[in-house]
Amino acid sequence: MTEKEFVLQICVPVLQIDHFGFLEDGTFKQRYLVNDEHWHQKGGPILFYTGNEGDITWFCNNTGFMWDIAEELKAMLVFAEHRYYGESLPFGKDSYSDTKHLNYLSSEQALADFAVLIKELKRTVPGSQLSPVIAIGGSYGGMLSAWMRMKYPNVVVGALAASAPIWQFPDMAPCGDFYKIVTQDFAEGGLNCDVNIRKSWKAVDNVAATDSGLRWLSSEFSLCSPLKKTDVAGFKAWLQETWVNLAMVDYPYEANFLQPLPRWPVQVVCKYLGFDPYSVSDYQMLSAISEAVRVYYNYTGSAPCLNTSSTATGSLGYIGWYYQACTEMVMPMCTDGVQDMFEPQEWNFQAFSDECHALFGVRPRADWAGIFYGGLDIASHSNIVFSNGGLDPWSGGGVTRNISDSMVAIVIPDGAHHLDLRYNNEYDPHSVLSARAQEVEYFKLWISFYATA
Amino acid sequence: MTEKEFVLQICVPVLQIDHFGFLEDGTFKQRYLVNDEHWHQKGGPILFYTGNEGDITWFCNNTGFMWDIAEELKAMLVFAEHRYYGESLPFGKDSYSDTKHLNYLSSEQALADFAVLIKELKRTVPGSQLSPVIAIGGSYGGMLSAWMRMKYPNVVVGALAASAPIWQFPDMAPCGDFYKIVTQDFAEGGLNCDVNIRKSWKAVDNVAATDSGLRWLSSEFSLCSPLKKTDVAGFKAWLQETWVNLAMVDYPYEANFLQPLPRWPVQVVCKYLGFDPYSVSDYQMLSAISEAVRVYYNYTGSAPCLNTSSTATGSLGYIGWYYQACTEMVMPMCTDGVQDMFEPQEWNFQAFSDECHALFGVRPRADWAGIFYGGLDIASHSNIVFSNGGLDPWSGGGVTRNISDSMVAIVIPDGAHHLDLRYNNEYDPHSVLSARAQEVEYFKLWISFYATA
Repeated sequence: MTEKEFVLQICVPVLQIDHFGFLEDGTFKQRYLVNDEHWHQKGGPILFYTGNEGDITWFCNNTGFMWDIAEELKAMLVFAEHRYYGESLPFGKDSYSDTKHLNYLSSEQALADFAVLIKELKRTVPGSQLSPVIAIGGSYGGMLSAWMRMKYPNVVVGALAASAPIWQFPDMAPCGDFYKIVTQDFAEGGLNCDVNIRKSWKAVDNVAATDSGLRWLSSEFSLCSPLKKTDVAGFKAWLQETWVNLAMVDYPYEANFLQPLPRWPVQVVCKYLGFDPYSVSDYQMLSAISEAVRVYYNYTGSAPCLNTSSTATGSLGYIGWYYQACTEMVMPMCTDGVQDMFEPQEWNFQAFSDECHALFGVRPRADWAGIFYGGLDIASHSNIVFSNGGLDPWSGGGVTRNISDSMVAIVIPDGAHHLDLRYNNEYDPHSVLSARAQEVEYFKLWISFYATA
Repeated sequence: MTEKEFVLQICVPVLQIDHFGFLEDGTFKQRYLVNDEHWHQKGGPILFYTGNEGDITWFCNNTGFMWDIAEELKAMLVFAEHRYYGESLPFGKDSYSDTKHLNYLSSEQALADFAVLIKELKRTVPGSQLSPVIAIGGSYGGMLSAWMRMKYPNVVVGALAASAPIWQFPDMAPCGDFYKIVTQDFAEGGLNCDVNIRKSWKAVDNVAATDSGLRWLSSEFSLCSPLKKTDVAGFKAWLQETWVNLAMVDYPYEANFLQPLPRWPVQVVCKYLGFDPYSVSDYQMLSAISEAVRVYYNYTGSAPCLNTSSTATGSLGYIGWYYQACTEMVMPMCTDGVQDMFEPQEWNFQAFSDECHALFGVRPRADWAGIFYGGLDIASHSNIVFSNGGLDPWSGGGVTRNISDSMVAIVIPDGAHHLDLRYNNEYDPHSVLSARAQEVEYFKLWISFYATA
């Protein structure tokens, strides 16, 4: 994978820890990365990545689209780190120490950070006053870019929200869509692939019922820590998350996003799972699952053992995201084992809320994000492109149809999770090339509108 | 004055004290008043008054416009009280006890209250799901109604922002405009009126320089507490605020808003101040000022003495508003004694900030409101009518020219502070009748657009 290692400036502005209250008057340093090698000082745009739940350098390196179009648009690139992630810690090493310190981790505060940062940039960088700013983000970062345009249309002229599940909230999208799409990906990945995964859960239960079975599982999966009886639910959750992650990063070429993977990894995985589901023993079934899982965890062949407590890159901030899910990012998910290949599990808000309370001392507010960010009623906003990949489970909570002339949806049937934000690649399907071209056209439209306003 | 005493329901929903953080999970009861006698359950609109810094019943009684048009529009009327004012106290009697308890007094929290309240109303009142909501407010309440449409366009279809100085913030309007308009009102109120007021400050200084002068002043103005040397600056500030208030409520008929007053009170005041400024002694000057001031403080003839620590109705929450000014509502004002009739006083942010810190333990953030609410760049929003009175000093910070087809300004040359929000009156000038008619036309447009959307 091509990586853009060089970044001309790394800037650290000072921001309020609490934008919405005055009791906490402390400030913190937010990290952001800037590249202006192609920027045209007289009105060239600023492409502003609204950082999500992780280290901003990782997003910077995985958002090749911005680097690819910088020259054509004469654009400055800015990648802003989200508070509480990477190095942008409001209370330093105490940021995650307790509920009190976590209290300023929210999307509203993050958007306010971005708004202040852009104002500060425009105040201090000569020439940038005339530069229209376009917000760009993927996944939660895409939600932020859309919300940035909705809440601060004075600060950004438009937004590209790539694979942004802004409707994955209560009463906006069916809770089962996410896992249905994962299942479709595996059904299309190879004969019997989804059917065998659907049958594998029972096989795990059967084998794990005995001590010798547990030992066999631990050895067959090369687990770093031997499985205990109490770990079985966690083991199945780990497998489930593995399939989800594979669906998310089912890219048409070798890539390293959540993990290093071959091209079309779901197809590669499914090669191991093509057998007749009624002709194998539980042990044969799980041997095949173990082979399949290794595609995800050990494509490079360098993993000494598999660790069931982790499923993806260390660049993401899992605890921070869990806290956000436990507060405002309430995204219902459910499975029924019929329309999807997973064990049935209803969405249980109360159980989730109790878990959040035990972990963080907070309870999620199920309706808040819908009220604050407009829910399904976003037609009065403008200049937002929502792109979604047909392979991406998050597209279930995304905006996949046009809302108005300037609130538009682009669907990339062969695309996984924000494929359009990645570098151009010779294996890119036509649909993603077309999507990127349309996105650039919208950028140009917003820029020209700004220039004549 | 006609007063609408009856209100069909007084409702109290339970709201989060902190919408933007999860550490403070307490709730409070917000008061709002509802009248549905004219409401058409199938799609009749909801006119929603976004309460400002005071008791909501007072705003309810002083917003006759909504009562006057309810039948024509088949509208439900809702008057929502702003948190920390009237009876809507998040921490009861402790709400103002210290900086910690005051921390949730902000416009952002108030707007979130309104949004949640409207959602709750729509959830619980049968038929209201189909009712478009129009935000209406005057003064700070008008700023809130405009911001409500900007930040929650999914919740309100449009807004009437009457006499709303959304640009009375740093770098948006000249700090001297406010007092210049006050001065113009008095210049037009009668011959020599502004000139004599301009000369009165020096007369106060001269007379107050001696103990006998102080005694004379106390007696001449029938002050409740005798003036001391250290009170002189406060006495002049009280006079200054009196002239400002008179300009604000210079209505064309007898009214009781800030105080009970005759029609065109500035003209009445100026009758006492028409003498040749060069022909009178300091004592004669101040005798006349004293007569003039009594128009404001003792029109009913029932005031036993004048109290220099208060200038207007007790229905407003002065401490709360001071706190808001000391945090986000930073509205620069200045005088030069040339273009206005006041003693020269520059805008001194640092001094103001120090005062705020001494009083409340907080420091104002001069740029925040501009960043959060868009400053001068509000063209991408829609469906807001900004009305301003030509006599109203607050019009200096208001939107007085059209921004787009759906962001429109209505100027009422003969109008004082949100005259258009008051009941129809036989003495209403044509300009305010025309303004109200235009406002209703915009309401109908938004309603019809909503019905066909």
